Amino acid sequence: MKPVNVGMLGIGTVGSGVVNILERNADVISRRAGREIRVSHASARHPERPRSCRLEGIALTQDPFAVVDDPEVEVVVELIGGCEPARELILRAMANGKHVVTANKALIAQHGNEIFARACEAGVTVAFEAAVAGGIPIIKAVREALTGNRVEWLAGIINGTANYILTEMFYEGREFGEVLAEAQRLGYAEADPSFDVEGIDAAHKLTILASIAFGIPLQYDKVHVEGIDHITRADVAWAEELGFRIKHLGLAFHEEDGYALRVHPTLLPRRHMLSNVDGVMNAVMVNGDAVGPTLYYGAGAGAEPTASAVVADMIDVVREFNLEPENRVPYLAFHTHSLSEGPVLAMRDVETAYYLRLSARDEPGVLAEVTRVLGDFGISIEAIIQKQPEAGAEHVPIILLTHRVRERQMDAAIERLEQLDKTTGRVVRIRVESLE
Amino acid sequence: MKPVNVGMLGIGTVGSGVVNILERNADVISRRAGREIRVSHASARHPERPRSCRLEGIALTQDPFAVVDDPEVEVVVELIGGCEPARELILRAMANGKHVVTANKALIAQHGNEIFARACEAGVTVAFEAAVAGGIPIIKAVREALTGNRVEWLAGIINGTANYILTEMFYEGREFGEVLAEAQRLGYAEADPSFDVEGIDAAHKLTILASIAFGIPLQYDKVHVEGIDHITRADVAWAEELGFRIKHLGLAFHEEDGYALRVHPTLLPRRHMLSNVDGVMNAVMVNGDAVGPTLYYGAGAGAEPTASAVVADMIDVVREFNLEPENRVPYLAFHTHSLSEGPVLAMRDVETAYYLRLSARDEPGVLAEVTRVLGDFGISIEAIIQKQPEAGAEHVPIILLTHRVRERQMDAAIERLEQLDKTTGRVVRIRVESLE
Repeated sequence: MKPVNVGMLGIGTVGSGVVNILERNADVISRRAGREIRVSHASARHPERPRSCRLEGIALTQDPFAVVDDPEVEVVVELIGGCEPARELILRAMANGKHVVTANKALIAQHGNEIFARACEAGVTVAFEAAVAGGIPIIKAVREALTGNRVEWLAGIINGTANYILTEMFYEGREFGEVLAEAQRLGYAEADPSFDVEGIDAAHKLTILASIAFGIPLQYDKVHVEGIDHITRADVAWAEELGFRIKHLGLAFHEEDGYALRVHPTLLPRRHMLSNVDGVMNAVMVNGDAVGPTLYYGAGAGAEPTASAVVADMIDVVREFNLEPENRVPYLAFHTHSLSEGPVLAMRDVETAYYLRLSARDEPGVLAEVTRVLGDFGISIEAIIQKQPEAGAEHVPIILLTHRVRERQMDAAIERLEQLDKTTGRVVRIRVESLE
Repeated sequence: MKPVNVGMLGIGTVGSGVVNILERNADVISRRAGREIRVSHASARHPERPRSCRLEGIALTQDPFAVVDDPEVEVVVELIGGCEPARELILRAMANGKHVVTANKALIAQHGNEIFARACEAGVTVAFEAAVAGGIPIIKAVREALTGNRVEWLAGIINGTANYILTEMFYEGREFGEVLAEAQRLGYAEADPSFDVEGIDAAHKLTILASIAFGIPLQYDKVHVEGIDHITRADVAWAEELGFRIKHLGLAFHEEDGYALRVHPTLLPRRHMLSNVDGVMNAVMVNGDAVGPTLYYGAGAGAEPTASAVVADMIDVVREFNLEPENRVPYLAFHTHSLSEGPVLAMRDVETAYYLRLSARDEPGVLAEVTRVLGDFGISIEAIIQKQPEAGAEHVPIILLTHRVRERQMDAAIERLEQLDKTTGRVVRIRVESLE
């Protein structure tokens, strides 16, 4: 049989990785797919620049739309990123009857509902394993392996930059800003790191994971997002003293009254599997009602790890060429007409536990006031630490761990605590999860 | 469409789990499979006994062959275990044109080559996710997700009983025999625990994993197998002092000159992800040439975890009903005519590193003799510990960590060490891996 012609949009880090894998592992790939797969066409803004892959046999162009419209191209691989022109390119590819493989988390999170609906109409596949957690086959695990389960919750370390920074802060006892600067020097963080350290990237991925897991439409705008830029070395040390690690997690829970979707720093028990995921590695824990907790760990970014997921999708698409569309694996693990309709809960209605750090005058009665405020708002305390003040200091830090309570109660309690005479400054709040 | 009729052989722990999941999650399962799936027929040795699932609507019989021959049954789920009559039942089901789902690791490991060949001839699917690592979708991950990769090695904690025992020995400082007895009382180990503690069960699973990963025929008889029954509390403590944990691993390496397949206790660095897998949980790490190291963790046994994998296979089989056989995912990730032919290496030709513990007279010059013997056999030493003897003791333990060397060299060196005047008893050897 003749090879499958793939048109690749973008020949950057991941694109080069795809070409290299297809070349190096051509024999096993064609045995597994049943046909040879080759990148026949590719677009790049600067086609003349040197790449970290060979470009022999690839028809190069500056115009991605030319690739998408070329009748010889059977599968389009979109590796440009961002929403435009990627969205337009993908929609046009599908309208042209071509299957699509993408690594574009921002696009799927924000426009996936439209893209999947148009793919259904066109009878083509859109595959996006590389959009979440790089090389870890998490989309396939949730969508095709945990199919006998209802997913009760999932939790993921899904941004390698943030995890690298928190790992360094923990092991080296350093401050956020210092580690960020070093991460940028080492290439683990972008010049503009906001997507990573403010949680936007993780929120894109969490949106996609939650939709696959729960069978709900993609609702990126409803995800509660917090980054790691306010985490201090002191909080990392206090968390350790209390038996926890601080990790930046994407969390999705199926509650009685709806779905909780949130991205924020989280205290996790030290012995939890996710607590031991260090550096730039990613991991997603998925709890199914039948299987219980399962964890998937691997490289969340990088040329060949991400390309590994792209190529796996390409092979799946090729295997499914001869299938009737209704026999293919549905995009969100559910046919689009049978998605769930429960609401995504507002953060204030979500119940969770908290680590609080506040600064108070070193006087008798402070602790009593603080605990009474918490009690007034129905907040039970699991642990308190109050150390001796530093020499000459007028204020001492008070650290508390609370039991679970609804966020709106904690919001109100914190407001009240900040108004007390004896306290100073803001109350630091980091949510706590046991994830068992 | 009418429901798919499944004939289940065996209504034990896993069988009851399958029925319960199909009932509890019927809505999501039929949405995902595209059709309702029901157990219509089932066989059990004592059909009248009460079960932990409802049996309404299931035609019960004592004769498993009747189920396999019944023209109304479309898919056969074999949950009897063992090689006979399971093998005969599965072959007959396939000859009758029925697809088969099984959890039977012993059967697939020892007779899988024949079963897959006959399935090819009959044009039916044999699915066996539940045969390895319970609910963890490891077969699917290797076979369908890492398809762009060559697998360089894999390593797994794939027997929950052995891992439970080693975990307890580590955290509680207890001896093997004592923990085994407790494990039996708690139901984590069988009355006859040899399959688990001697490594047979792990070897069955490792055989299957290696074949999927490397595209080689199943070769159970070539796996080097050691259990955990010779591990002492002392070795666990020494390993910890050296910065390691002792885990019972199934290991498969693609070496230059062939494949190394082995099951044995292994010293792993304390910070390795596998070192933190505790209790009855399982985990498999797979290193692909493109994606790098990936880890899959979850419950390796139990009614609903194992049944979760069986049901996922059932859904896959139903989804693939309308496919031509050559469009389905090949059993070993390769079509049977294109399997690799490299040899499985004999253990003596395998290279690895070692922990050695020997007992020697508390005299000057002992260490020099020991290290000279190792040097004579080309064995480099990474670390040595020799403590003060206990009060009144004539012998002291000497602990060594060596660099990598071929097992035949270590065999010869150990034989020589045991012959020395100054040493007494056997030399304890536990292999060491860094798995990075």
